[in-house]
Amino acid sequence: MAKLFMFEKPLGMRDTLPALYERKKQVREKLAAEIEGWGYQYMATPTLEYYETVGDASSILDQQLFKLLDKEGHTLVLRPDVTTPIARVAASKLLNRIPLRLAYEANVFRAQQNEGGRPSEFEQVGAELIGDGTISGDAEVIALMIHALKRAGLSSFKVAIGHIGYVNSLFLEIVGNEERANVLRRFLYEKDYVGYRNHVKKLGLSSIDKQRLLQLLSLRGNEMKIVEAIDLVENETGKEAARELQRLWAILESYGVTNEIKVDFNLVSHMSYYTGILFEVFAENVGFHIGNGGRYDQLLEKFERPTPATGFGIQLDRLIEALNGKGYESRPAICILFSQERLEEALSMAKQKRQEGERVVLQDVAGVQNIDGFTTTFEEVIYLIGKAKKEGEK
Amino acid sequence: MAKLFMFEKPLGMRDTLPALYERKKQVREKLAAEIEGWGYQYMATPTLEYYETVGDASSILDQQLFKLLDKEGHTLVLRPDVTTPIARVAASKLLNRIPLRLAYEANVFRAQQNEGGRPSEFEQVGAELIGDGTISGDAEVIALMIHALKRAGLSSFKVAIGHIGYVNSLFLEIVGNEERANVLRRFLYEKDYVGYRNHVKKLGLSSIDKQRLLQLLSLRGNEMKIVEAIDLVENETGKEAARELQRLWAILESYGVTNEIKVDFNLVSHMSYYTGILFEVFAENVGFHIGNGGRYDQLLEKFERPTPATGFGIQLDRLIEALNGKGYESRPAICILFSQERLEEALSMAKQKRQEGERVVLQDVAGVQNIDGFTTTFEEVIYLIGKAKKEGEK
Repeated sequence: MAKLFMFEKPLGMRDTLPALYERKKQVREKLAAEIEGWGYQYMATPTLEYYETVGDASSILDQQLFKLLDKEGHTLVLRPDVTTPIARVAASKLLNRIPLRLAYEANVFRAQQNEGGRPSEFEQVGAELIGDGTISGDAEVIALMIHALKRAGLSSFKVAIGHIGYVNSLFLEIVGNEERANVLRRFLYEKDYVGYRNHVKKLGLSSIDKQRLLQLLSLRGNEMKIVEAIDLVENETGKEAARELQRLWAILESYGVTNEIKVDFNLVSHMSYYTGILFEVFAENVGFHIGNGGRYDQLLEKFERPTPATGFGIQLDRLIEALNGKGYESRPAICILFSQERLEEALSMAKQKRQEGERVVLQDVAGVQNIDGFTTTFEEVIYLIGKAKKEGEK
Repeated sequence: MAKLFMFEKPLGMRDTLPALYERKKQVREKLAAEIEGWGYQYMATPTLEYYETVGDASSILDQQLFKLLDKEGHTLVLRPDVTTPIARVAASKLLNRIPLRLAYEANVFRAQQNEGGRPSEFEQVGAELIGDGTISGDAEVIALMIHALKRAGLSSFKVAIGHIGYVNSLFLEIVGNEERANVLRRFLYEKDYVGYRNHVKKLGLSSIDKQRLLQLLSLRGNEMKIVEAIDLVENETGKEAARELQRLWAILESYGVTNEIKVDFNLVSHMSYYTGILFEVFAENVGFHIGNGGRYDQLLEKFERPTPATGFGIQLDRLIEALNGKGYESRPAICILFSQERLEEALSMAKQKRQEGERVVLQDVAGVQNIDGFTTTFEEVIYLIGKAKKEGEK
């Protein structure tokens, strides 16, 4: 075996050692407890999908896809997201009982371009509400996400909520065509507000229109910003989009989660995916959003079953980072180190302690070379070595 | 999108719909509860590994590997097993505190050659005991596997236990070289006992030696067969291998699991992997083994850290099949169907029922097109529609 490769892993691939594994497991279970409590049903899709179906529909950049060829020469991809495969399953099998509430916990794959960058394989936990086009549906997935994050132990976070329909209407109204609107949208997508300002200044528009484009940047804050947004846009589609946010806010107040909400009319989470209300979650100590979601009413059309849908996805690694050690209970094992003549005694002690819920390592001392190195990993070590004392013996 | 492909999945790839997903989850959790109770720590490795490291060391046939190229032209594989990646991690990072007890629940990938065959992606749950070369170690992983299967609800199964060192010694003693021994081993590996008999008859051996080779086939049953096995082989290596099984049997009696054990000196689980005691689990109604394992003392050598090791893997899908509906508790959801004017009432009812541990779907009636189709999926439907009755009203 080439020395160079002996312990290496491909770019962006990571091992998850026991301590982190257990932490992730506990957080994943807490998220699942909440998500299942709201009647969402977990399901799974394959790691490999056809490029022509899921790879193509998923809207992930082509260069980020892991591709391989099957024996027939068809291109396969490692699933780059889970929403698209779930849409495939829903469209082919499940639409007779909509609205559907589905959930997943799965790894997704995005090829990275350079060392030290983001991971190429990472876990998402998410929920999809398929077949419900109402604002109640949008509110439900946002409220569920907030409840799930709180249950996982996250205390300080904000969900920024926007509406892509509002942004689109405003831009089209002012700049006149999709191409120019797209340039503006890209600045927002990249959260490059300086670039946006500079670009707006150079546009051949009236100073009033320029001012309106710049005013969009200030539409971030509490529900009062929604009223400003309704005033800023002139066309009815844009006004109606903002009013949807108003109705959403009211329902989220009933859910009691508006402390975690801020309105953000600059939000453009994804260039071509979302069709209405959309959102991103930020925690204090993590640079990237730890979760996001929104309404994607056009995805199921790609499987010839036009159906409204909304959902969210949480990036588990980033949530773990945001939790910063909270929401996790360490469960150390104890060790019974025995020699053969006391096997029976060791077995019965281990059995009893395990029944009491303890984690018990049972180790034949003959199998240990370095007793000190081995025993340091346990909270408690019980030695059952050598001849057992008889009763009455001291 | 090509119609042909719209809902298709690659060969051997499967969706896991909610009912099966929940069943698998419950069984997986029961296995994990037992495995963790014995102090095994779960970990995870990446889906993609370098062919030169894990692909090569895993002893899975090349044609069964899913391969792709990275940007530098290195060949990557989708992990075909988990034991080899765990050996990679152990060898590179964890050997300072052996014996190690590690566990995993992960999908593995084996490309299939034809439609309607076995799945190409399937889940294994397993445990590895690394750094303990004693029979106590072998006994522990076998006893743990039996306890885990029982905890998962499996009642009727047998673990066949053999010793590859015994088979190798006997064959070499009688047929004289590895090449001829290998032909015999392959018949046993394929469980082709008719082929084995026919082949033995044609060998240029004394009738006594032919009889001895045929007698091997009868060495399947209870611990008395171990005594016969010790008599059948003449060389000390072979006798010692059989005596290892004797000591193993004694320890497994202390564990109280010999009801589930049968001795099988014909067992050759894998052509090049196991080095000592090895085993396979069979349940009544499943054609393939549902789990297997054994001692693999030479795998860590491939990562230049020679270390004894043993472990088992359970194929979750086959275990689910063997359980045949047992070991699973259905948890249906109830549904609260509400109209906007009764949102508050619906929310507070849902909250209370969720706190009581119920799964509650909260659905705005405006989001449902086919009420009958939707509501049939729930055990109970509560309607909060229209104006609420005021107190005192009838």
